[in-house]
Amino acid sequence: MAQDLFLYETLCEQLAVRIRGGGFAPGERLPSVRALSKAFGVSINTTVQSLRKLELDGYIEVRERSGAYVRERLPANESTGVVSHFPLLPVEVSLSEDILRYMEPHTSEQTLHLGIALPDASLMPVDRLMRLWRDSSRRQARVLWDYSHPNGLPRLTRQLSQRSIGYPSAIQEQDILVTNGCMEAMELALRAVSRPGDVVAVESPTYYGTLLALGVLNRRVLEISTHHRDGICLYTLEQAFRRGQVKACIVSCNAQNPLGFVMSPERKQRLVELAVRYQVPLIENDIWGDTAYAGEALPAKAFDQQGMVIYCTSFSKTLMPGLRLGWVAGGRFHDRLRELKQISSITTAAAPQLVMARFLESGAYAQHLIQLRGQLQQQALDALALVRQSFPSGTWVQPPEGGCVLWLRLPERRDSRDLFQQALNDGIHIFPGSVFSVGPRHFDFLRINVGSPLTLQVREKLLRLGELATGLG
Amino acid sequence: MAQDLFLYETLCEQLAVRIRGGGFAPGERLPSVRALSKAFGVSINTTVQSLRKLELDGYIEVRERSGAYVRERLPANESTGVVSHFPLLPVEVSLSEDILRYMEPHTSEQTLHLGIALPDASLMPVDRLMRLWRDSSRRQARVLWDYSHPNGLPRLTRQLSQRSIGYPSAIQEQDILVTNGCMEAMELALRAVSRPGDVVAVESPTYYGTLLALGVLNRRVLEISTHHRDGICLYTLEQAFRRGQVKACIVSCNAQNPLGFVMSPERKQRLVELAVRYQVPLIENDIWGDTAYAGEALPAKAFDQQGMVIYCTSFSKTLMPGLRLGWVAGGRFHDRLRELKQISSITTAAAPQLVMARFLESGAYAQHLIQLRGQLQQQALDALALVRQSFPSGTWVQPPEGGCVLWLRLPERRDSRDLFQQALNDGIHIFPGSVFSVGPRHFDFLRINVGSPLTLQVREKLLRLGELATGLG
Repeated sequence: MAQDLFLYETLCEQLAVRIRGGGFAPGERLPSVRALSKAFGVSINTTVQSLRKLELDGYIEVRERSGAYVRERLPANESTGVVSHFPLLPVEVSLSEDILRYMEPHTSEQTLHLGIALPDASLMPVDRLMRLWRDSSRRQARVLWDYSHPNGLPRLTRQLSQRSIGYPSAIQEQDILVTNGCMEAMELALRAVSRPGDVVAVESPTYYGTLLALGVLNRRVLEISTHHRDGICLYTLEQAFRRGQVKACIVSCNAQNPLGFVMSPERKQRLVELAVRYQVPLIENDIWGDTAYAGEALPAKAFDQQGMVIYCTSFSKTLMPGLRLGWVAGGRFHDRLRELKQISSITTAAAPQLVMARFLESGAYAQHLIQLRGQLQQQALDALALVRQSFPSGTWVQPPEGGCVLWLRLPERRDSRDLFQQALNDGIHIFPGSVFSVGPRHFDFLRINVGSPLTLQVREKLLRLGELATGLG
Repeated sequence: MAQDLFLYETLCEQLAVRIRGGGFAPGERLPSVRALSKAFGVSINTTVQSLRKLELDGYIEVRERSGAYVRERLPANESTGVVSHFPLLPVEVSLSEDILRYMEPHTSEQTLHLGIALPDASLMPVDRLMRLWRDSSRRQARVLWDYSHPNGLPRLTRQLSQRSIGYPSAIQEQDILVTNGCMEAMELALRAVSRPGDVVAVESPTYYGTLLALGVLNRRVLEISTHHRDGICLYTLEQAFRRGQVKACIVSCNAQNPLGFVMSPERKQRLVELAVRYQVPLIENDIWGDTAYAGEALPAKAFDQQGMVIYCTSFSKTLMPGLRLGWVAGGRFHDRLRELKQISSITTAAAPQLVMARFLESGAYAQHLIQLRGQLQQQALDALALVRQSFPSGTWVQPPEGGCVLWLRLPERRDSRDLFQQALNDGIHIFPGSVFSVGPRHFDFLRINVGSPLTLQVREKLLRLGELATGLG
C-alpha cells in the first residue's frame, strides 16, 4: 500500500508525457482502465486514481459511460517530474485587498445577480416561520426573556440528536452545543484544536470564508487537491497526516461548496479512519448537507465512533440566515468547545431555538427539505443548460449533486478575474475561482450562485455572462 | 508625585502599627485628615489615600460626616512592613471545580433565591418588547430573513451613537459593532489586544465571568485593589502600568459588580489619561452603567479622545438577557474587532436589533430606565435595612450607587464559603466573595442579588440568611 501512494502519481506523469509527445492525440480515447492496469502492471485502483489526477491536471476529459479522452487543448508549460498537483507546503493566508473586493464588491448597481451562495427567500417557508415566531412570543415570553440553557434549548437539542438516529454512530444530545451559525461552530472548533501558527489542511478549492477565518486566526494552510465527484484526495491527505505537521483538517462531504459533490459512504468512512489513525481532528463543515438532491446524505460524523470529528452546521442555507442558528457536535473536544462558547456569546438566543424546535417537531422541516432539494436541483440543471448554450466552447461544467452553485472552468486557461469587473458592470456578481484557494489556483474557474428561480431577468444575466466570457481573451 | 506613590502606603503602615500598639483604642475617632497631614508632613491627598487603604485593610471604619474610627475588632496576623494590599504579581487563573460550584450550584431546590445578579423580569417591559417583536416580524420579514449589516443594523447603531451626544468625546456610528452580548464584546476585545500568556490587570473584586474568560483564554491576571466608592486604585494601577507588564486592563466605572460604586468624572478622566500615557488599552465593562441610580453616568469612554478605550455593554441587565444583544465601540482597535467578529458569529441577528432600535427611537427605553433605577434603588435600600437587622453585629455593608447587588462583609473574618452550603440547603444562593478574585481574597465578603422586588418570600430568605450568618463560627 505504501508503494501505491506514489505509484498513481508516477503513472499519471507517464501518461502526461505520452500525451504531450503525441503518443495520444487530442480528442483520442484512452485505453480502458483494465487495459491500462494490465499494460502498466498496476492495480485498477491505482489506474483510476491516476486518471483522476490526469483529469484534474487538465489533460483528459472523462465522459460518462464512454471513457477518457485527451483534451483538445493541453495545459501549458507544466513542469516535468513526479510532483503532486499541489506541493505539500503549508502557507500563510494573506488575503489581499483584491480578494476581499471579489467577496464584497462595491458597485453602483442596485441589484446584483448570482453572487453569494444562498437559496432565495422565495423557496423558504418564511411566513410559517414568522407565524411560529409570533406564536412563541405569546406563549413563551418568559423562556425568551432569560438566558437559555448553556448547551442549547433542550427541546431543540433533542430534535437535532434524533435526526441522527439512523447513523452508524448516532449523535448524543449531550454532545450538541447550539451556536450562532456554522461559522461560529467552525471558529470554536479551530480554536479548540489548534493554535496560531499551526497547520490546517483544507480542500482545494474550499469555501473562501474558511480561508478568511484561517487568516484572521493566523493558522497556516495546507491545500489538498479535491475532486469534483470524489471529494478530498485521501492519498494526498494521508501523506500530509503521515508527515505529522497537520493539526486539524477542514472538510465538507456533502454538497461541498463550490464543487457540489456528495462523497461516497466508503470514502467518508476512510476519511474518518485516517483522522483516527493519525489523530488529526476533522472539522466537518456540513452547512449544505441537507441540500443533497438525493436526500438524506450521511455526514462523515455518522461514522465517528472515536469522537475525532467536530461536526458543524446551521440552518442558514436551508431556512434563514437571519435565525443565526447553528450547532456543533464536538466529539471528544466538546468540553473545550463549551468553555470557549461560554466566555463568548454565553448562550444562543432562545427565540430562534424555540421556533426551530417546533418546526422540527412538526415534521415541517423534513417536508420543506424534500421540496427545496427538488427546486434547487431543477434550478441547477436549468442554469447548466443555459451555461452550455451561452458560454464559449470548451467550457467545463458538471451537474452538482447538491447545493445551489455551479462551478465552471473557462477554456484555454482564461482568467475569470478578467471577467469579474465586466460582469459587475452588468449587475452580475461572480466569484473567481482564485478566491477559493490561497495560491492563485483555479484561476480559470468561477462559481455562480443558482439559488434563485430562473426568472427572465436571471436568465438574461446568465446569457449575458456567457457572452462576456466568450468575448474574453 | 513619584515619591507619593509609596508615601500613602508608608503612612498607612505607620497608622496600622500605632493602632495595634494601642496608640489608638478600638472605637476611638482618629484625628481629622487635616490634622494627620500636618502631623505627618504629607499632602491631604496622601492622607486620604492612606485612610482608604486602612479602611480596606480592616483597621478603621469611615462614617459619613463623622470621621474615621478604629474598628472594634482588628484584622488578625497582618504581616508588617510596607506592602501593597495585593502584591503586583500576575498569576494564572485556575478556577477550581469548587469555584464553579458556587457559580452554578447543583441543588434539589426548585427555586433559588438571591443568586445571580439580574433584575427580575417583572421590572421589565416584556409585553411591550414582545409586541414590538411580533410587529417587526409582520412588517420586516425580509430584513429578519437575511444576514444583517456586518457592523449592525444601521437603525440601531445610529440610536446607540446618538445616546453619546452629550459626551466630551462622542461615539461615532462607524465605531460601533453590534455583538451577541457584553461577554462577546469583552472576549473580542481581549483577543484583539492581547495573547495567551499576556498579563491583564483587573479590579479586585471583579465580576467572576471576567476571571473565567481570562482563564479560558490563558491570560495572566494582575489584581488591583479597588475601593467600594472610588473604584480601581489609580496609584497602584499606575505602578503596574509603569512596570510595563500589563497588556490590557478591564474596568467598570459605573455600578460596578459587585461593589456598586459610580466613579467620579475626575477619576474616570485620570483613568483614561493613564491608559493613554502608558498605551495600555482599557476594556470598559459597562453592562450595569444604565442602572446608576442618579441617572446618566458617563462611562470612561466618554473621555476617550485617543481611542484607547474599548467600550463594552449590552441590554441584558436593563431589558432582556434573551435578546442576546450587546455592542462594542473599539476605538483604534475597531478593525481587529471587526475581523474577529466576522469569522465568528458573522453578524448578530437582525430581529433583536430591530426591536431595540424601535424601542430606543420611541423614547421608551429612556422612560423605562427612569423607572428601573428607582425600583432597583428602593429594593437595594430595603434589602440593606433587612441585612442590618438580621446579620451579625459587625457586618459591614454600604448602599450601592447602582445595580442590584449588595456586597457584605462578615465580622471577624468569617469565611462566607462556610455559609454557602447551609444557605443553599434553604434555597438561597449567595456568591462567596472569594469567587470575585483569583487568590483567596475577599473570603469574608459575600454578594447577594437584590434584583427582585422584596416579596414576603424574599424577605424571609434574607432574614434566614442573616440567621445562618449569625450562627456561623
